[in-house]
Amino acid sequence: MGFPVPEGFEFAGRKRNDVGVGLIVSEDRANVAGTFTENSLRAAPVEYCAEICDKGKARAVIVNSGHANAMTGEEGHRDVLRTAKGVADIVGCPDDEVLVCSTGVIGVRPPVDTILEEARDLASGLGRDPRDVEAFNEAIMTTDTRPKIEWYEGDGWSLLGVAKGAGMIHPNMATMLAFIVTDLDIPHRDLREPLRRAVDVSFNMISVDGDESTNDTVLLMANGASGLKPGRDVPLREFEKALEHVCVELAKDIAADGEGATKFVEVVVRGAFDEEEARRAARAVVSSNLVKTALFGEDPNWGRVGAAVGAARVEVDPGEMMIAFESEKGRVVTYDGGPVGFDEEEAARVLSADEVRVIVDLGVGEAEAKAWGCDLSYDYVKINAEYRT
Amino acid sequence: MGFPVPEGFEFAGRKRNDVGVGLIVSEDRANVAGTFTENSLRAAPVEYCAEICDKGKARAVIVNSGHANAMTGEEGHRDVLRTAKGVADIVGCPDDEVLVCSTGVIGVRPPVDTILEEARDLASGLGRDPRDVEAFNEAIMTTDTRPKIEWYEGDGWSLLGVAKGAGMIHPNMATMLAFIVTDLDIPHRDLREPLRRAVDVSFNMISVDGDESTNDTVLLMANGASGLKPGRDVPLREFEKALEHVCVELAKDIAADGEGATKFVEVVVRGAFDEEEARRAARAVVSSNLVKTALFGEDPNWGRVGAAVGAARVEVDPGEMMIAFESEKGRVVTYDGGPVGFDEEEAARVLSADEVRVIVDLGVGEAEAKAWGCDLSYDYVKINAEYRT
Repeated sequence: MGFPVPEGFEFAGRKRNDVGVGLIVSEDRANVAGTFTENSLRAAPVEYCAEICDKGKARAVIVNSGHANAMTGEEGHRDVLRTAKGVADIVGCPDDEVLVCSTGVIGVRPPVDTILEEARDLASGLGRDPRDVEAFNEAIMTTDTRPKIEWYEGDGWSLLGVAKGAGMIHPNMATMLAFIVTDLDIPHRDLREPLRRAVDVSFNMISVDGDESTNDTVLLMANGASGLKPGRDVPLREFEKALEHVCVELAKDIAADGEGATKFVEVVVRGAFDEEEARRAARAVVSSNLVKTALFGEDPNWGRVGAAVGAARVEVDPGEMMIAFESEKGRVVTYDGGPVGFDEEEAARVLSADEVRVIVDLGVGEAEAKAWGCDLSYDYVKINAEYRT
Repeated sequence: MGFPVPEGFEFAGRKRNDVGVGLIVSEDRANVAGTFTENSLRAAPVEYCAEICDKGKARAVIVNSGHANAMTGEEGHRDVLRTAKGVADIVGCPDDEVLVCSTGVIGVRPPVDTILEEARDLASGLGRDPRDVEAFNEAIMTTDTRPKIEWYEGDGWSLLGVAKGAGMIHPNMATMLAFIVTDLDIPHRDLREPLRRAVDVSFNMISVDGDESTNDTVLLMANGASGLKPGRDVPLREFEKALEHVCVELAKDIAADGEGATKFVEVVVRGAFDEEEARRAARAVVSSNLVKTALFGEDPNWGRVGAAVGAARVEVDPGEMMIAFESEKGRVVTYDGGPVGFDEEEAARVLSADEVRVIVDLGVGEAEAKAWGCDLSYDYVKINAEYRT
C-alpha cells in the first residue's frame, strides 16, 4: 500500500506469541484530543488517556494487544503508570506525554515488563515508511482479519488513520481503537470539536453488538510539522472533511471486517425529522438481529426493517415511507407509502451481492444519516460460543 | 391442565390453515386497561385497542394470528373497524366494546370475512372449561412451541392470564400478546396503574431482540362477576401481587420459549443505585449477543457480563462488584471486587444446566431487578435466516 505518512511521526510494531506492541512517536510534542467509551467500567488505560487528552500534549502512544487491562482494579492503574513511565524514559519525554492503550482479554493485567522490553526494541526501529505503519497496525490487531489504514493527502500536509476492531465484536476483545495523526498545526482547543463530530458520523454509526466496550478509544494527534495551520494556510473545512473522511472509511473497514460476516451492509435513512432521529433509525436497522439474519438469508424482509425503525421511536409517516434494497446488482422497492408488489427472485438476486444497501425514507423531513454493519451468520455464533476465556 | 377460569368469562379458539382466531367474551361489560407497544409504526388494531382502553369498557376480545395488520395503511384501519362491528353483531354489544388484536406477517391485510365466519362458529361454542382456554391459546400462537397460561386463585375470585410470544422473536411474527381476566370488581381508573407496574417488572424485562414489535399488547379485563372489590373485600395488595405474579410467570414462559434456544436465562442485578439502574443493567446483560452466545457455549465469560453492565452506563463500583453463575448444578463466583480464580470445569458443569442464572452485584446501593431471556444458538440464525415472507 502506498500512502503519505504525516511529517514528524514514526511508527513501529511487532506481535510475538500473544503479546502485540505498537509504538507511535512524534518528533516534537503534539497536541492531542480523544474520544472514549462511555462504558461505566472503562479500563485503566482509558481513564489515563482521558486525563492526558485533557492536558492536551503528547509525544508518544504505546498500544498493547492481548490484555485489555479492564476490571483490574488499582493494580491495573499502576500498570498503566509504569508503562507510561517506561516508554517516557525510552522516548525521552515527560511521563505525562505518553498515551497508553490496551485491547484484549478483560480482567487480566498486561505483562508490563514484556511490553517495555518490546518498546525498547521498537524505539530503535521506528520508521516513516508505510511498511512501519502496517507493522504498527498488525501488532495491535486482535480478531481483525485485515489491516485498516485510511488517509488524506493535502497540499503540503496529510492526515493518516490506523484502526483495529471488528464489526461483530469478539468477546473480551471488543475494543475499537483508532489513531489519527496529522502534521497540521492545530491548537489543542481546536482539535476536540472536529474530532467529536467526525466520530459521531463514523465510529458511532457502526453496529458493534449494541455493546460499547470497556476500552474503545479514538486519538487525534497534530504535531504541526508541516508548518501549516487550518484557517490560515489550509481551509478549516478541508481539514474537517479530511478528518471525517478518514474516520468514516476506518469505521466502514471495521464494519466490513465483521466476525463471521458474509456481507457488508450500509443503511441510509432519509426524510427524517432531524439528524438525531435519522441517526437513531439508521443505527436501529443496522443493529437489528432480525434484519441482520434476513440479510444473511438474502431475504428482502422489509417488515423487519419497518419494525426496527419503529422500535427506534422516530417520527415516521407510513403513508409517505419508502423502503428499498440496493446493490451493484440492482434495486428493489418493497414499500412505498404501502406494501409494493415486487419480484422475489429479482430481490434475492440484488441481495446476493457482498455489499448491500438498505434505504429507508421516513417521509417526514429532510434529515439523513448513514450507518454500517454486517449480516449475522452461523459463524458469528460459532466464533462467539466456542471462544473460551 | 387444571386451573380456575374467572366467573363470567368464556373462551373459544380454532386455527385452520394459516388463520387462527380466538374469542373471549364476558357475560357482562368488563372494565379494561391495556399497555401497548411504543413502536412508532404500531399496527391498526393496536391504535384501535388503545382508544377502547381509554374509554375503559369491553365485552369481547377477538384475536387473529397469521396477519399482523401492521403497515397496512387506511385499509388496515377499516379492516379493524369491520372486524369489531362484525363481532359486536355476533356477541350482541356496541361496536366500541370489542377489542381487536392481530399477530402475524407485517404488511398483509387480515382476511376479515374468514375471521368473522370463524368468530360466528366460535361464538356458539364458547365455554368456561380449561380446554376452552387452551383452544383460545393455541389459536393465537404463531412460532410458539407451547401454550402459556398462568393464574392466581383467591378466596372467591381468580385471575387468569393467557399469552403468546417467543423469547427470541420471529421475523414479522414478533408480537407478544397477553390477555388477563379477573372476576374482581375494579373500576377502570384503578386498573391502569397496577397493570403498568406489573408489565414493567415482567414483559418489559424479557429479551426480545431489542426490538419492540408493531403489535405488542397486554390487556386486563375485570368484569366484577365475583362481587368482590379489592380494597373492600380483598386486600388491594393481594390483587396487585396476583397480577404481578401472573405477568412475571407469563413473561418467563415467553422467554423460555425462545426460538432455537437451548437454555432459559435469569439475570439478577443487585446492589444498584436505584431500581431504574438495576432494570437497565439486567436488561443489558440478558439482551447481549455476546453473553447469549457465551451461555450457549457454556462459557462462564464474566468479562462479557461486565462489559454489558458497563455499556448500560449504570453506576458500579468495580472494587465491590460481584459476578456469579448459578444453576441447580451449583454456583461459581468469577469476580468479587476483582477477578477470582475459579475451576473452569466446575463452571462449565454449572452452565450445562437447562436453566441458568447470572448474578451481578453492582456494589453501590440496595436496588434489585430481574430479567429473563435465553441463549443464542445456531438454530436462531437458521430459523431467522431461512424464513421467507
